Amino acid sequence: MTAAEPLPVPTPADLRTLQHRLAGMPPVAAMGIAVRDFADGGLRLEAPLALNVNDKDNAFGGSLASLMTLAGWGWLSLQLDLAGAQADIYVADSQLRYLTPVYEILRAEAAPEAPAEWPGFLAALRQRGKARLTMAACVRLASGQPAATFTGRFVAIAKR
Amino acid sequence: MTAAEPLPVPTPADLRTLQHRLAGMPPVAAMGIAVRDFADGGLRLEAPLALNVNDKDNAFGGSLASLMTLAGWGWLSLQLDLAGAQADIYVADSQLRYLTPVYEILRAEAAPEAPAEWPGFLAALRQRGKARLTMAACVRLASGQPAATFTGRFVAIAKR
Repeated sequence: MTAAEPLPVPTPADLRTLQHRLAGMPPVAAMGIAVRDFADGGLRLEAPLALNVNDKDNAFGGSLASLMTLAGWGWLSLQLDLAGAQADIYVADSQLRYLTPVYEILRAEAAPEAPAEWPGFLAALRQRGKARLTMAACVRLASGQPAATFTGRFVAIAKR
Repeated sequence: MTAAEPLPVPTPADLRTLQHRLAGMPPVAAMGIAVRDFADGGLRLEAPLALNVNDKDNAFGGSLASLMTLAGWGWLSLQLDLAGAQADIYVADSQLRYLTPVYEILRAEAAPEAPAEWPGFLAALRQRGKARLTMAACVRLASGQPAATFTGRFVAIAKR
């Protein structure tokens, strides 16, 4: 695969596999986080407000952080599966900005910050057993307004 | 209060009030987050691993982010109460580093990054109805090794 090749598009079965993987993590299940779709190269997750409210009746910052972190993690998990690569994926660091309170369903989308780096990431994982990629994610209101942004580096470590 | 004055130390009743406030947030209750104590100027929270595991049987990054964010939020909530100030507290941004996987109970501690700025923060909140403070938090293993670090700016908005 070269930078010019389009990413494979996950099937509904692929998205169900990811959903199952997410639901297997107790804190993720408790937040009701669900896979919405994969569109325009990005993975979209969502979660109901009722399970994620803070003391001010809007979305808890930790839930927004979790949702964006998982959107980045889930994107990598999906695309590594589609590439036939088996790896554990960890978040290494992240920067978050909370722009406006969220009083509706939480919706996050994620994709690599520089999609052209994906083939190099895959090649590094295959050759060296370890690779890093920066993911960008955001929470967007139904109006289209960004409510929170996330940039984070993820590390994939090949399973032996 | 001047920068030279020590912070008031919360009583057990103050900590129970904070615990009650945390437990009132569904995602926080789901993670089993509990107030441990307030010592050496810092607030310590903890959460059981079982409610916070990921697919790799260690602590979910989102739970570590939530715990450190709440430790910062909780510190401010406690100290604003003790200062007699009524305010909503929001996290505005944060930077996180995940240093090593956590296979044990999650323990976070938080305090202002620059404790000497606390009196100025309180004065700004009283005079202008709004103030910002940077909090530092970390998750530390029982061995003392840091497992994750957090720096985040919080905004307090006086309740009218």
